[in-house]
Amino acid sequence: MEAEIISIGTEIVLGQIVNTNARFLADQLRRLDIDAHWQTTTDDDPTRIQAAISQAQTRAQLIFVCGGLGPTLDDQTMASTAAAIGVELALDDEQWQKIQADFVIRKTKMTPENIKMAYYLKGGQILANPTGMADGAYLNHQGHTYVVLPGPPREFKPMVTQSLLPLLKQQFGNDKAIFSHNLHFLGLPESQLMDEIEQVLDEAKLDDVLATSYVQPGEIQVRLTIHDAMQAQAEKKLAAAEQAIFKRVGRYCFGIGEHITLAEQVVKLLREHQWTITGAESLTGGMFQSTICSVPGASKVFNGGFVTYAAQTKEQLLGVPKAVIDQYGVVSAQTAKAMAEGCQKKLNADVGVSFTGVAGPDDLEGQPAGTVWIGIAIKGQPTQTSQLHLSQKMATRQWIRQRSVQMGLLFTYWALQNKTN
Amino acid sequence: MEAEIISIGTEIVLGQIVNTNARFLADQLRRLDIDAHWQTTTDDDPTRIQAAISQAQTRAQLIFVCGGLGPTLDDQTMASTAAAIGVELALDDEQWQKIQADFVIRKTKMTPENIKMAYYLKGGQILANPTGMADGAYLNHQGHTYVVLPGPPREFKPMVTQSLLPLLKQQFGNDKAIFSHNLHFLGLPESQLMDEIEQVLDEAKLDDVLATSYVQPGEIQVRLTIHDAMQAQAEKKLAAAEQAIFKRVGRYCFGIGEHITLAEQVVKLLREHQWTITGAESLTGGMFQSTICSVPGASKVFNGGFVTYAAQTKEQLLGVPKAVIDQYGVVSAQTAKAMAEGCQKKLNADVGVSFTGVAGPDDLEGQPAGTVWIGIAIKGQPTQTSQLHLSQKMATRQWIRQRSVQMGLLFTYWALQNKTN
Repeated sequence: MEAEIISIGTEIVLGQIVNTNARFLADQLRRLDIDAHWQTTTDDDPTRIQAAISQAQTRAQLIFVCGGLGPTLDDQTMASTAAAIGVELALDDEQWQKIQADFVIRKTKMTPENIKMAYYLKGGQILANPTGMADGAYLNHQGHTYVVLPGPPREFKPMVTQSLLPLLKQQFGNDKAIFSHNLHFLGLPESQLMDEIEQVLDEAKLDDVLATSYVQPGEIQVRLTIHDAMQAQAEKKLAAAEQAIFKRVGRYCFGIGEHITLAEQVVKLLREHQWTITGAESLTGGMFQSTICSVPGASKVFNGGFVTYAAQTKEQLLGVPKAVIDQYGVVSAQTAKAMAEGCQKKLNADVGVSFTGVAGPDDLEGQPAGTVWIGIAIKGQPTQTSQLHLSQKMATRQWIRQRSVQMGLLFTYWALQNKTN
Repeated sequence: MEAEIISIGTEIVLGQIVNTNARFLADQLRRLDIDAHWQTTTDDDPTRIQAAISQAQTRAQLIFVCGGLGPTLDDQTMASTAAAIGVELALDDEQWQKIQADFVIRKTKMTPENIKMAYYLKGGQILANPTGMADGAYLNHQGHTYVVLPGPPREFKPMVTQSLLPLLKQQFGNDKAIFSHNLHFLGLPESQLMDEIEQVLDEAKLDDVLATSYVQPGEIQVRLTIHDAMQAQAEKKLAAAEQAIFKRVGRYCFGIGEHITLAEQVVKLLREHQWTITGAESLTGGMFQSTICSVPGASKVFNGGFVTYAAQTKEQLLGVPKAVIDQYGVVSAQTAKAMAEGCQKKLNADVGVSFTGVAGPDDLEGQPAGTVWIGIAIKGQPTQTSQLHLSQKMATRQWIRQRSVQMGLLFTYWALQNKTN
C-alpha cells in the first residue's frame, strides 16, 4: 500500500509556516503499516494542484490532499482535486445549512465563496470537521483512494483522528498490522541508550522487535515496534522486550505510553504520597515550578515557591547563610543544599528542589556556562545534591535552563520512587 | 527563476520529525525573490532520490537536495544526485584529511563509509559545513543549478547562511530585489490588525507595500514587503508605511526587526531606567519570571520573586490580607493589586507584576478558565490592574498561561514606556 501526502499552501512554499500536518499524518499512516514514501507541497494554484495529483496517481494508491478548503478566493483545493480526478463536486446540504445559520448568529455578511466549504467529491463520503466549518472528502475512484483534508492543524488533526482513521482502518486495516509501545527515557546519551537496548534485544533473541529512538526536548522516546504480527503474539513479545530493557536501563525510563511527560509522573507520585513540593530557582528562574504547574491538578501538590536569582535574594527569602555563599560561591553543592532546605522549611513542604548554576553566555565565579547544582531536600531525609556539566558546543542559554529543569524532575522522580520502596 | 526543494529523509516520511529545513530555505529564497513553488520529500532510497531530481528538472532551474550526507550506509544523497545529473563525484582532499584527523583525536574507529562526507559534485564547488563534517555541493550543469545540503538543522542552517547564500546572491541576485521589514505586534486580534494596516496603506497610497501577517506564540508578526524596487526607494517607502501604521496601531507594536522578543524589549527598557522587576505568580507558576530570565543580562534587572499558587501562600509570602481574599476571591483585581504591591515591597523592586486567574480545565470560585487578573505596581505610582478574558473554544491550560505571561509583558512594556514620556 503506497500513499502520497500532498500539502497545498502558499504560506508553506513561501516559508512562512512549518508543515506539521504532513508529519502528523505520516505518523498515523505508519501505525497502520501504510507506506507514504512521497510528500509533495505546492501553493494554492489550480494548475499545480492538478499536476501534483496527476503525479501522485503514477506512484501511489492512496492520495491525501491537505489544505486550501477555506472560504476565500485562494482556496482551490476541492475543485482542483475534482478536476484532476475527473469527478464532479457535490453539495452537503446539511453542512450548507449549518454554515448559513452560523453567519446569522455571528451577524456577519456571507460571501458567495462560503458555499465552497460544503462541497465534497461526488460519489464519495463526507469527512466531518469536528472543529471547523469546511467538510473533508473521501473517495474511491478507479483504483485510487482520495482523501481531502483542511489545512489549519487545529482542524486537520481532529478530522484525521475522528473522521478519517476509522475509514482507513475499515478499508486498509488487517489483523496482521504494526504494534508498538513508546518508552520515555532521560539521563543517558541517546547512543549509549540505544546500544544497550540493541544488546538487550539481541541477547533476549527478540530480533523482530525494532527499536527506534527520537530525541525530543526533555526526553528520548524509544519506540518498540513489531511488524506483521497478530496482536496477542506482538503484545507478548513487546512485554518481554520491555522487561529485558527495564532490567538493564530501567532507572532511566520514566514511563510507557503515547502522551507521557516527566512532570506528570512527578505530580502523580507526589499525589500518591500526599506530599507537597516547592522550589528555589536561580538560573532556571521559575521554569521548574512553571513546569510543575503545567500539569492539571498541580494545586494538590504545589502551594508556591521562590525565584532567587541574586545572591542577596537567596539570603533574604530562603535564609541561605551569607557565609555559605561567601565561602563556596553561589554555584556550589553547599548553596544548592541550603536553598533546597530553605524553601522546603519556609513553606513547610515535603520536598524542596533547588537550582543554582551558570546559564551563560558568560562564566560565573570562574565556572563555565552549563555548570549547574541541583538540591533535593525531603522532610526527615538527608538532602541530596547533584552536579550537571552541560557545557557543550551547541548548548544555548535556553537549552541549559530547560535541561536543568528536566534533570531536576528526573532526580525528584528518583527520590520519590525510593520513598515507596 | 523557479526553484524546487527536495528533502531526503526516512525519518521525515515516517512522520518522526517535522521538516523545518524546507521552511527555513523557502524563507531565505523568498528574500532573494526566488520562487520555490514545489517541495518534494522522499526517503533515503537511491531510486526515489533520482526520480525526485529528474522530476524537478522538468519544472525548476534551481534544485536543492537536502539531507542524507552522513557517514552511514543509509546516506545516499550525494551519490544519487550525481547519478541523476550524470556527473561524477569528486573528493575534497582537505576535508578528508580533517575527517581522518578528527577520528584520531576522538580515538574512534572509522568505517569505510566515512569518506562519503568529503565527496562533492565534480565540476562544481564545495559548500563548507561550519558546524559538521559533511561537505555540501553547488553545481551549474546544463542549464540547472544543483545544491546539495546536509539534513541536521544545526548543520543545515549555518551552511545555508554562511556558505550558500553568498553564492546564490552572486549568481541570481540583482539590485531590483525584494525588501522587507518585520513588525512585531501583540494585543489586537489578527483580523482587526490587518484590516487597520490595509486601510492605512490604502489611504497613504502605498499600494506596492505588501503586508502579510503570521501569528506566532506571543505575537503577530507583520512583514511589509516591496518587490522589484531599488534599495533606496524601497527603504523610503517602507519607512513611510511604518510611520503611517504607527500612527494608527503603534501602541500594539513592540519592535521592528528579525529577531525581537517582547521579553527582550522589557528588559531593555528596565535597563535604560535602571529599574528592577519582580513577580508574584499564581496560575502562571513562574513562567513570567522564567521568561524574563531567558534574556541574557536579565540579572541586571531581576533579583528574584515569588510563585504563590495557594491562597495561603499569597498571604504568607506576599502579605496579601486574608480579608481581601475572603471578600473578593483570589481571582480579583483586589488580590492582583495586593500581590503586585506585596512582591514589589518585599524585594524592594521598582516594578512588581502579579498574575492570578483560572488556568483550567476546571472553574475556580465560579469563574471560567481564562479569567485572569494582572497587576502592575510601580514604586511611587498607583497600581494598575487589568482583566483578561481568555476563555475560547481552543484555549488549553498551557495556552491560557502563556497568553497571560505575554499580556503581562505587554502591560509592563506600556507602563515602562509611559515612564519615559
